[in-house]
Amino acid sequence: MNKHPEFLLNKIESPKDLKKLNLKELEQLASEIRTLILEKDSVEGGHLGPDLGIVEATIAYHYVFDAPKDKIIWDVSHQTYPHKMLTSRAYAWLDPDKYKDVTPYSNPEESPYDYFAVGHTSTSVALATGMARARDMLGEHENITALIGDGSLTGGLAFEGFNNAADEKHNLIIVVNDNQMSIDDNVGGVVTALKKLRESNGQTADNPFTAMGLDYKYVGQGNDIKAMINAFKSIKDIDHPIVLHINTLKGKGYEPAIENEASHHWVLPFDLKTDKTTVPAPKTPNPTTVILDFLKKHIENQENILAINAAIPGVFGLGEIKNKYPKNYKDVGIAEQESVAFAAGAVKEGIVPVLFENSTFLQRAYDQLSHDVAANDLPVVMVVAGGGITGTSKTHLGIFDNAMVANWPNWEYLAPTTLNELKSMLEWAVKQRKHPVAIKSPVNPVPEGEAVDEDYSIIKYDIKPGSKVAIIGLGDFYQLGEKVVDLLKTENINATLINPKSAAHLDHDALDKLQNDHELVVTLEDNSIDGGFGQKIASYYGPTKMMVKNYGAKKEYTDNEPKKSIYKRDHLMPDQIVSDILEILK
Amino acid sequence: MNKHPEFLLNKIESPKDLKKLNLKELEQLASEIRTLILEKDSVEGGHLGPDLGIVEATIAYHYVFDAPKDKIIWDVSHQTYPHKMLTSRAYAWLDPDKYKDVTPYSNPEESPYDYFAVGHTSTSVALATGMARARDMLGEHENITALIGDGSLTGGLAFEGFNNAADEKHNLIIVVNDNQMSIDDNVGGVVTALKKLRESNGQTADNPFTAMGLDYKYVGQGNDIKAMINAFKSIKDIDHPIVLHINTLKGKGYEPAIENEASHHWVLPFDLKTDKTTVPAPKTPNPTTVILDFLKKHIENQENILAINAAIPGVFGLGEIKNKYPKNYKDVGIAEQESVAFAAGAVKEGIVPVLFENSTFLQRAYDQLSHDVAANDLPVVMVVAGGGITGTSKTHLGIFDNAMVANWPNWEYLAPTTLNELKSMLEWAVKQRKHPVAIKSPVNPVPEGEAVDEDYSIIKYDIKPGSKVAIIGLGDFYQLGEKVVDLLKTENINATLINPKSAAHLDHDALDKLQNDHELVVTLEDNSIDGGFGQKIASYYGPTKMMVKNYGAKKEYTDNEPKKSIYKRDHLMPDQIVSDILEILK
Repeated sequence: MNKHPEFLLNKIESPKDLKKLNLKELEQLASEIRTLILEKDSVEGGHLGPDLGIVEATIAYHYVFDAPKDKIIWDVSHQTYPHKMLTSRAYAWLDPDKYKDVTPYSNPEESPYDYFAVGHTSTSVALATGMARARDMLGEHENITALIGDGSLTGGLAFEGFNNAADEKHNLIIVVNDNQMSIDDNVGGVVTALKKLRESNGQTADNPFTAMGLDYKYVGQGNDIKAMINAFKSIKDIDHPIVLHINTLKGKGYEPAIENEASHHWVLPFDLKTDKTTVPAPKTPNPTTVILDFLKKHIENQENILAINAAIPGVFGLGEIKNKYPKNYKDVGIAEQESVAFAAGAVKEGIVPVLFENSTFLQRAYDQLSHDVAANDLPVVMVVAGGGITGTSKTHLGIFDNAMVANWPNWEYLAPTTLNELKSMLEWAVKQRKHPVAIKSPVNPVPEGEAVDEDYSIIKYDIKPGSKVAIIGLGDFYQLGEKVVDLLKTENINATLINPKSAAHLDHDALDKLQNDHELVVTLEDNSIDGGFGQKIASYYGPTKMMVKNYGAKKEYTDNEPKKSIYKRDHLMPDQIVSDILEILK
Repeated sequence: MNKHPEFLLNKIESPKDLKKLNLKELEQLASEIRTLILEKDSVEGGHLGPDLGIVEATIAYHYVFDAPKDKIIWDVSHQTYPHKMLTSRAYAWLDPDKYKDVTPYSNPEESPYDYFAVGHTSTSVALATGMARARDMLGEHENITALIGDGSLTGGLAFEGFNNAADEKHNLIIVVNDNQMSIDDNVGGVVTALKKLRESNGQTADNPFTAMGLDYKYVGQGNDIKAMINAFKSIKDIDHPIVLHINTLKGKGYEPAIENEASHHWVLPFDLKTDKTTVPAPKTPNPTTVILDFLKKHIENQENILAINAAIPGVFGLGEIKNKYPKNYKDVGIAEQESVAFAAGAVKEGIVPVLFENSTFLQRAYDQLSHDVAANDLPVVMVVAGGGITGTSKTHLGIFDNAMVANWPNWEYLAPTTLNELKSMLEWAVKQRKHPVAIKSPVNPVPEGEAVDEDYSIIKYDIKPGSKVAIIGLGDFYQLGEKVVDLLKTENINATLINPKSAAHLDHDALDKLQNDHELVVTLEDNSIDGGFGQKIASYYGPTKMMVKNYGAKKEYTDNEPKKSIYKRDHLMPDQIVSDILEILK
């Protein structure tokens, strides 16, 4: 039920309706939108600071421009809640029953006002350059706008976009939304450049945008609707590329989000009165605490360990390392390519870099994994989070990292089945100084397990012997293997259960021995089947009589589909697997 | 035998020996190095313009700095011939018998003066930031230098490097070697920015480097040894990051290379008197002429086709499109991420973008293939060159593109077996307006073949029926399949031969039917087995009695190893395959 039937927002069916409002009404709208962002986020969680900061700019944009003919590409699109509310989707904020009816990112399947599914940073200017060029080819004249945050500017693709934007011949508007924050504190030369521009009210000659030949305009009051309307009006239908640099306040309207911007970039459900999260703290130990304890132990042992990440310290709880051991910490900004090449440079000089990456964002550094690290066979250590079926948005799926990491020569890619195994893998990874080693942080809870101290130079499978059928459960799908083995017992099959440890290398001896008394090998991986671990097993057994059945995620983009639903569709429930096995053995 | 025993260069055993020479002798050395570059390139082919342009800067660097303690990272490292000659490897230019004894790129296995195997652009600053940070952690003080060309500046990773360089606290020297060229003409805002700096002798306030907080120095005469020595002396042991912008002449010392820089960036063997290549022109038609004819036909038909590439028009002979149809041509500079995102933007506006990519460089755009194109399921068309076993340097291997492209949802990845099939695939790709389609340009010669006009929406295998054994030969390995089938006849096996057309999608009907009268399916792909096409076949047949044997490249970096040698080691010779098959069938 609509919680705020009195809100002016109820009358905004499309941006056209905005144009009839006066300034006071527009300001009321801004206030309503802020209330709704906070109300829904407190229940559902979601991006908070970026959306609170962009309310006025969004209202002004839709007041001045004529969407969907005029087009705006929101970088990352984590700041599109106000945009969605103004483009026929306010119901998903007004009515708590409909909170889940609208997706959290830009989504063309949801609305003609969204042009791309977007979830990674730094793409907006590049997309806009292509759109602008195509518009010109077609003889059209609409305004094409990219809105990009200062945090996203550190990503190389953003720069590639600006470089090409400077070559475009006609209309192209790049709004740089400068809230002086990335996901965490922003870093690098970009920070300096933007600061000089802000402090000179856009007047300094030290301007990287005009240096590249781009036109430039500054708005100091990016949270003032009037100022933003005037700014947009002054550049609407401009006949050349321009950068509109706006100064906004991330988290505006909610004090705790202004005081601590990093922790309010994205929030779990929380209490609006106390700002405290309503989600119970994760049980300890868990992968995050294991990894942090490991890091601290080595740093305090005076070892030359450098924890490197690309603007996501929060994902791994690296805040403690940042604050307590700044010498051992490096955040390169949203710049995954740099993070991996930086690690390659550092390891060559003789220290031990440990990269902390998110599966989906690591895709940006695919070439560096090979060209800078693996082709040089450098002992970089990398921890990968989010590598599995998680039910997230289609731009954030973490099911492709087995194919991404484990198909390069020289990389080891380990997947622990317990917390103690994770610890053992981390210890070995920093001790061996021979090859690049990646370790997957489980996305599903794993047990603490028995103490392990193992050398993974040559992969040796852990085997709980049985016969006829062998279940190989990689990483956090080992538990699925246990369930399948248990269920098979009720069918009078005493199956073998295997922890293969590595997504990159096979234990040929173990696989060869299985041929003596097994007919079928089943592989389970929490990742895409295509290009993954299981297909290596299928290929290895190809020329033999051994049958192999690969389980994992299908080759498709799921979009905010719950994990359980994906499991069912992909036949990843224990009973489904058992019935498949019985069918194969018939 | 040493062709120039009289050369002063013979006395330079290490950079230390340089320091004893006077300016006149250093200039003589520069002249000798130029002679040797031209002599060897005229016989062997190789990079020409970049090396001719960097001679003086290299001599000055080694005169002033103390390598290998002081370290220099050469971006792309295609300009390291002078460096190699000054670091104990001159024999490979002086003695024609030893021309092949030294590799063409930076190579740590070859010399302690080389720190990384490098072959892709824009990595040097990023690597140097990691080295500088690690050096500081270890309490060392050597000079760390990155030398990067203006062309490489357009790559986003270069910018990520600069952004982080600005944060480094101690010595870091970035030499921007500005020869006013990329591989082809350089593009974008970077060109404007550098031009303003050159024309103001480095004095303009419009300076993108100082805007980011980096120190900056300009040398107008980058081909003057004295000027370069003075410049390097003035910044040696500097205690903060600095950009040394040097103006050099690409191709200096060889008039044809100055007059036409693009065609002399990299050369085939040529006649030093006439500058004409001594390599016979490739037979026509070939994949390049087929693709060009296709493009021209559609452009002249007034279709909204846009040919997009990232600084490599020469690879596809796109110069003609650039000159004759500029409206239908876009070079985004060395910026593969931008090229793919640009195409995604363009297709969304309703035109037909055709991307031209090199397998190895496309790795840079891995995330865009998914995030911007496939997750949005946009009908971008892409032609991929160099996707196969080619015997090139380890940084340039093209064996990973089946895993890179064909494991994403929504992408089709077609591999033609004949020129007419290539044509048919191109025609279908631009006509279907539903999904992203990539097409592999064969690396081995393929026959013209029969005329084809096919719809590839649903993959249907072409089958020459036999029994017992089926050979599936993907793309230009179809011919290998033909040879295997012929050889098998002499063993009284009448094998089935299949053209599977796609590396991404299987023809399940055809595969199911093979089960009736076949025991073994052999897959042949000109690409890495791991994560590739064949493993999908192995996985599909996994739960059946069908045996499968996958052939392709092993998971390893080969380095300038001749193709034939790789073929033999990877069991890709027809007789090896046949003997494997007989062994499996035993």
